[in-house]
Amino acid sequence: MVSEDIKKLAKDIKEIKIQGASNIEKKAIDEIIKYIRKQKTEYTEFISGLYENVQHIVLQRPNEPKLRNSMSYILNKAQEMLTINQRQILVDDIKKYEQKTKEGNLIASENTSNMIKDGDVILTHCHSTLVEESLKKAHDKNIKFKVYCTETRPLYQGRITAKRLSDYGIDTTMVVDANVCNILKKADYFLTGADVVLADGSVVNKVGTHAISVVAEHYKVSHTVITTTHICEPQLFNNLRRAIETREIDEVWGKDRPKKLKIENPAFDIVPNNLIDKYITEEGIFSPETLYFWINKVNTKSI
Amino acid sequence: MVSEDIKKLAKDIKEIKIQGASNIEKKAIDEIIKYIRKQKTEYTEFISGLYENVQHIVLQRPNEPKLRNSMSYILNKAQEMLTINQRQILVDDIKKYEQKTKEGNLIASENTSNMIKDGDVILTHCHSTLVEESLKKAHDKNIKFKVYCTETRPLYQGRITAKRLSDYGIDTTMVVDANVCNILKKADYFLTGADVVLADGSVVNKVGTHAISVVAEHYKVSHTVITTTHICEPQLFNNLRRAIETREIDEVWGKDRPKKLKIENPAFDIVPNNLIDKYITEEGIFSPETLYFWINKVNTKSI
Amino acid sequence: MVSEDIKKLAKDIKEIKIQGASNIEKKAIDEIIKYIRKQKTEYTEFISGLYENVQHIVLQRPNEPKLRNSMSYILNKAQEMLTINQRQILVDDIKKYEQKTKEGNLIASENTSNMIKDGDVILTHCHSTLVEESLKKAHDKNIKFKVYCTETRPLYQGRITAKRLSDYGIDTTMVVDANVCNILKKADYFLTGADVVLADGSVVNKVGTHAISVVAEHYKVSHTVITTTHICEPQLFNNLRRAIETREIDEVWGKDRPKKLKIENPAFDIVPNNLIDKYITEEGIFSPETLYFWINKVNTKSI
Amino acid sequence: MVSEDIKKLAKDIKEIKIQGASNIEKKAIDEIIKYIRKQKTEYTEFISGLYENVQHIVLQRPNEPKLRNSMSYILNKAQEMLTINQRQILVDDIKKYEQKTKEGNLIASENTSNMIKDGDVILTHCHSTLVEESLKKAHDKNIKFKVYCTETRPLYQGRITAKRLSDYGIDTTMVVDANVCNILKKADYFLTGADVVLADGSVVNKVGTHAISVVAEHYKVSHTVITTTHICEPQLFNNLRRAIETREIDEVWGKDRPKKLKIENPAFDIVPNNLIDKYITEEGIFSPETLYFWINKVNTKSI
Amino acid sequence: MVSEDIKKLAKDIKEIKIQGASNIEKKAIDEIIKYIRKQKTEYTEFISGLYENVQHIVLQRPNEPKLRNSMSYILNKAQEMLTINQRQILVDDIKKYEQKTKEGNLIASENTSNMIKDGDVILTHCHSTLVEESLKKAHDKNIKFKVYCTETRPLYQGRITAKRLSDYGIDTTMVVDANVCNILKKADYFLTGADVVLADGSVVNKVGTHAISVVAEHYKVSHTVITTTHICEPQLFNNLRRAIETREIDEVWGKDRPKKLKIENPAFDIVPNNLIDKYITEEGIFSPETLYFWINKVNTKSI
Amino acid sequence: MVSEDIKKLAKDIKEIKIQGASNIEKKAIDEIIKYIRKQKTEYTEFISGLYENVQHIVLQRPNEPKLRNSMSYILNKAQEMLTINQRQILVDDIKKYEQKTKEGNLIASENTSNMIKDGDVILTHCHSTLVEESLKKAHDKNIKFKVYCTETRPLYQGRITAKRLSDYGIDTTMVVDANVCNILKKADYFLTGADVVLADGSVVNKVGTHAISVVAEHYKVSHTVITTTHICEPQLFNNLRRAIETREIDEVWGKDRPKKLKIENPAFDIVPNNLIDKYITEEGIFSPETLYFWINKVNTKSI
Repeated sequence: MVSEDIKKLAKDIKEIKIQGASNIEKKAIDEIIKYIRKQKTEYTEFISGLYENVQHIVLQRPNEPKLRNSMSYILNKAQEMLTINQRQILVDDIKKYEQKTKEGNLIASENTSNMIKDGDVILTHCHSTLVEESLKKAHDKNIKFKVYCTETRPLYQGRITAKRLSDYGIDTTMVVDANVCNILKKADYFLTGADVVLADGSVVNKVGTHAISVVAEHYKVSHTVITTTHICEPQLFNNLRRAIETREIDEVWGKDRPKKLKIENPAFDIVPNNLIDKYITEEGIFSPETLYFWINKVNTKSI
Repeated sequence: MVSEDIKKLAKDIKEIKIQGASNIEKKAIDEIIKYIRKQKTEYTEFISGLYENVQHIVLQRPNEPKLRNSMSYILNKAQEMLTINQRQILVDDIKKYEQKTKEGNLIASENTSNMIKDGDVILTHCHSTLVEESLKKAHDKNIKFKVYCTETRPLYQGRITAKRLSDYGIDTTMVVDANVCNILKKADYFLTGADVVLADGSVVNKVGTHAISVVAEHYKVSHTVITTTHICEPQLFNNLRRAIETREIDEVWGKDRPKKLKIENPAFDIVPNNLIDKYITEEGIFSPETLYFWINKVNTKSI
Repeated sequence: MVSEDIKKLAKDIKEIKIQGASNIEKKAIDEIIKYIRKQKTEYTEFISGLYENVQHIVLQRPNEPKLRNSMSYILNKAQEMLTINQRQILVDDIKKYEQKTKEGNLIASENTSNMIKDGDVILTHCHSTLVEESLKKAHDKNIKFKVYCTETRPLYQGRITAKRLSDYGIDTTMVVDANVCNILKKADYFLTGADVVLADGSVVNKVGTHAISVVAEHYKVSHTVITTTHICEPQLFNNLRRAIETREIDEVWGKDRPKKLKIENPAFDIVPNNLIDKYITEEGIFSPETLYFWINKVNTKSI
Repeated sequence: MVSEDIKKLAKDIKEIKIQGASNIEKKAIDEIIKYIRKQKTEYTEFISGLYENVQHIVLQRPNEPKLRNSMSYILNKAQEMLTINQRQILVDDIKKYEQKTKEGNLIASENTSNMIKDGDVILTHCHSTLVEESLKKAHDKNIKFKVYCTETRPLYQGRITAKRLSDYGIDTTMVVDANVCNILKKADYFLTGADVVLADGSVVNKVGTHAISVVAEHYKVSHTVITTTHICEPQLFNNLRRAIETREIDEVWGKDRPKKLKIENPAFDIVPNNLIDKYITEEGIFSPETLYFWINKVNTKSI
Repeated sequence: MVSEDIKKLAKDIKEIKIQGASNIEKKAIDEIIKYIRKQKTEYTEFISGLYENVQHIVLQRPNEPKLRNSMSYILNKAQEMLTINQRQILVDDIKKYEQKTKEGNLIASENTSNMIKDGDVILTHCHSTLVEESLKKAHDKNIKFKVYCTETRPLYQGRITAKRLSDYGIDTTMVVDANVCNILKKADYFLTGADVVLADGSVVNKVGTHAISVVAEHYKVSHTVITTTHICEPQLFNNLRRAIETREIDEVWGKDRPKKLKIENPAFDIVPNNLIDKYITEEGIFSPETLYFWINKVNTKSI
Repeated sequence: MVSEDIKKLAKDIKEIKIQGASNIEKKAIDEIIKYIRKQKTEYTEFISGLYENVQHIVLQRPNEPKLRNSMSYILNKAQEMLTINQRQILVDDIKKYEQKTKEGNLIASENTSNMIKDGDVILTHCHSTLVEESLKKAHDKNIKFKVYCTETRPLYQGRITAKRLSDYGIDTTMVVDANVCNILKKADYFLTGADVVLADGSVVNKVGTHAISVVAEHYKVSHTVITTTHICEPQLFNNLRRAIETREIDEVWGKDRPKKLKIENPAFDIVPNNLIDKYITEEGIFSPETLYFWINKVNTKSI
């Protein structure tokens, strides 16, 4: 049975009252921890109840990958419990996961900031907290660089990037999404975050990332992705055939749109591994191929 | 001295009360014909007055190429007059130019429609009357094809395309501007108009055309441009160094934008000739190289 | 009404008793000339009868382009006749066309042979009389070069090339069709004929030519096409949407093939203009773009 | 001394009475096990005799890599024996190797089948048991996809693929080998097996694979190779300079071929690592670079 | 019989006492004019003598194309003479040719200078008078641009460019020949002259031009060639198989070089037409394909 | 305080009396070992003194990477000392490092020599001891191959390669640096050493390597780098932003150069990882991505 609190949270997520991948994830974790603490049932019942409540949250935004990753983590850890009394261990594990993710973010952005040089020209797309933090850290070190950001239709998340960076004092210029050729002709990096990394090192990110990445390769500009290894799911082959969330077409054109017009509004794009130059993570630099290799074959206990 | 009527027209153009390249051109030609008919001056004075009035119109939108092309035509023809009494010949020439342009459009779109086959998938960008007419003609011939169009930020001219084609019964789907990889992966044509054709066969078109053309080439999809030879200026080398009109940044983000944020808002992109597969015109099919060759070296009297 | 002789000819063509593009064309011209000489009707009746008989031949092999081109020529010329008494002029014109085509072949192969140097490595596909003649002429000049030819499935026309060149004393090696990477890695030319040149300079040639041309470009090897300007139809836009002849699937796998297996057996491939380096013709060297330009815009009376 | 049974087996392999890489391997293993069991000699003599008999088999088809790999395994394991009495341990090891290879095949094809989606279009070349099994498993899961296969000259192994898949109910279309451009233009995968994986992740596979892989890259289609890690030899640098088996030219053109014609008939092609998108194995997904890295640097005891 | 003056001139050319393509051409024309004026022979004798003397000059530097072109012109014009008395007409023609070439140079460099914009970054290789003049003219117009030039081994002709441009006040930087990646990554043009334009629009220019052109294409930088139509020979197919002059290996490494070391020292490179973006000439802008088309098919009387 | 011996060494390095990366490294290690042995100070003082002396050496040639790598190693090892009495352990460690590097070189060149086949054509640039040794070893095995080497401006280190290989009996041809297109068109390898390998597998090598690598990729020729894992620094993100040593411009053009001419004379180039096919090391074959992965993630104790 889905608890009332979880129902309310789910509604807020669906109606986008709560938004932003990290924010959604945080709120969901908080509510699930509260839920876990309140349960007084037998072990089996606890697990099935937890599963039901987690599913209810995840289904509101089937392709919000950060959310799904931490919810999967919680379910996996719960299944390692032997009795219901180990709930506190579960809660501690969840908090450690949150903490480790946070630390991973700090190190990954510090690493990225060390890569940036005076005079660099950087293009970014959409809003990524890791990209934002990396650029702020580079700015803190008095490196003089120039950022271009797209507005990122349909929801204009690029404006968040634009505002935060320019308010912070970074030399920032915004352009419409398809106006990238002149910028990439003379740029040093196309820098993005990642929503999910697939089992072959391809990246799922905000729609438009794929096209801009093609243009970056055309001009021999490095598409560098900042991420943490926590975002990478354990190797699943059907990971490669992941369906992409299709969102409301009102986001693209409201009710005054023509009757017979179709609109496609996928939330994400898949950038194939061969277009990505490197991943910067809290564990160091990886190529698309070695990132997944690290997770699945070398450091299998890391997550 | 600039006449009051011309001043009013110029103001309307500047404030975008009159818009659309063909519409602006038509209104300007009408007013200039009226102006020419009213003049009663000596030849020299007539020419310098005409020059002043034409300049005044053109300067409102320095990169509205169709407008500039017909105004240049008028000034050139005026200089061929021997006496002020030949004004009627000038007016007739102007009307012939208008008529010929109109016929050229009809033939070019007929030609394009003959290229389209059942099952074709076509991507277009922005709104081009020639693209619209070509697709409608193909539809009239009962050819079953599918059109994708971008919304074309910042001014959403792609919605004009989307509305007119879907209202006409054509299978039409709109996407945001950077969402073109999945479409081009399986498309047959990237079909656009041209604002100007430069002296080396490169094309000036709505911002974003260049990036989408790069993606089209990545997937080996033909970038086919529909145009008429009337749009091509006589060969000028400084044509190649043409400045691109920069428009109001409010078009991209209104007054609530961050103070320190810069915005670049060029109206146009230059697509280099090597990305363009072919031009379809009223004179037949050209490559970027043979189009200009035709105009300057073979058919030098055609315009 | 289709004459008995034409009916017999058509049957032989259909059942491939008569084969080879030039041979089919020759036989058809001979029969049509005989037919023309025999007619004693009025002008209008003559034209419609001629049309009916020509159509009957052409329809046996809807994509035998050489045949269709000369039959079109005959119909066009017939329409220039003013009275039935000018039949001899028509016959003379047809013979001049045959003669001019033959001379064009000689010059084109002479031109090509002058391009070949000692030590050249040349790959060819299928059998083309123009390629064969060019290589023999180069051999006659004591140039030492090496030819690779594919076997050209399903009908093994490459064996014709292999036999004629090796019998002539040319250093010739045959390989299966897909075994071209090692050869092209160190080759100087991929040399083919053309069945039709389309209105944008793309070439229709034996199936497989497109794939080999892609591999040639991968290794920066020139795809040089030998043709005559007589093969190029007057510019037709629907030329670009030409359907490709689909042949009997028995050619690929006989009656013992699995019941549920589908087989696709197109006779031809379309190689897009951007993969073709140059055309060598009786009129000189052309790029894909200038070849059609020559025919339609410069030398419009040449055919 | 080579035993009579081994001599007979070798003769059958040479004359292609026994064919198919897995079948040859199985028969050879069976005979070698029988041979091992029969020996009653001293240890040193046993080893040299085994070496002689294994060599005799391998030399019949110097480039049948699967055969050579298991024979190497047997020789290596034999050298680990301390006394002749450990023959049973050797036989057990050989059987475990066979078993492990079989299981690896099952997992690799299961993994591949999970990658295939409804609507996928897949091209394959030659016959690979792993490809066949993968596609059958995907079909068993009710996924609706379309397979194209080449006929694979000169020995038409593609017909085996064509027959087995179409008999199984899979939507299968066969084409001649060079007819791949139209298919790859709209395909999702070029899927092949591997005869050997070289020390730099390049793949040795049926002649023609390289050219088709070039065309796949041209259209941005993933060349995915299914293999097991058992096929990869321990890292040998001269692995990179492997000679390719040249087979009888009668396979290409029988005795009626022209006297002076040369024919090249290599059995295999080497596809360089940069053309291969990924390997699917029983151990998961690898890039060409990480596959060998896994075998030599991470899991060195795995084989 | 070769005259003493011509012998002396030939010796000076061979020993590089006279150098620089234009300079050699000028001296040779002057001497040939003197020779023509002195002859008092019959027409046939005159022609054969002229042929002998011209040959003697040309053979000193078999690949000095400018020299050969004007000498061919002289021989062709001489053959148009009807009697020996028309020698003055011949001399006048030669002078007109010289004058026209000079004017062509002026217009071509003026045209090029109009293409250059403020902020442009231009790479050039070797020394070309047309490149030098174009850049000086752009500088005269107060355009602010930056030039990089290579030193151009083995004879350091790039130093001539470096000196003349920097002395003229142009912002000029010299680098060694292979140090072009960082420059081309952010450049606008790779600008060179041409020694000969071949019949397919490929260009023969100083060794190294081909490699730098490949790098320019890698970074999508236009390789723009400045030339005059006078440099283009009438269409000859064996033009395509032109041998490249091999020069003294002492130029690369003097007498102290190792005994067994081979050195290859070709004077020129052939840049294939597909790497060249455009030609700027006195007749306007051409693509590699339309340049030759112009000369052979449109303006056949122009030279 | 910097010792007198170290001061003298530093002066000799700066004035290029001591040159060649390995030689400089050896001399510096010898002097530092002598310095360590002489110290009689407290631990803290010892460390700071060592740091000061090492810095003094390194600063003479800030981009002599081999030197810096071994000096870093010494400082790191010194910091592992617990007391000043462990100096002998430190000295032993330094000698082991020297020994291991030497052995690594031997194995890496042996590995490379096993990759070379009869008939191979190899281009190399500058002088690399590893390349030299590899080619000599292949020659010792009686493999018949052909080497091309560039002269490598400005300091002509290619002549060292040219002399040593040709004196050794290897078929060696030298060309000027930009004369590489004709060679790479038909070559099998572009083989170089590496000055440093960056954290993403990119390579720092003699200026010109990047451009030649671009041309190699153009012709699908493998850029193979021979190195040892000892050259790879532990993963540092600012490794990626490494400044490149700028050397005296006199090396390019001496005192007679024009006053206003600028010269850029970087010592090194950075070749991005995607242009490099493989690394051959003493540990086996790596891709650019797995080489660093090996060092940082798998074999972290190896250096």
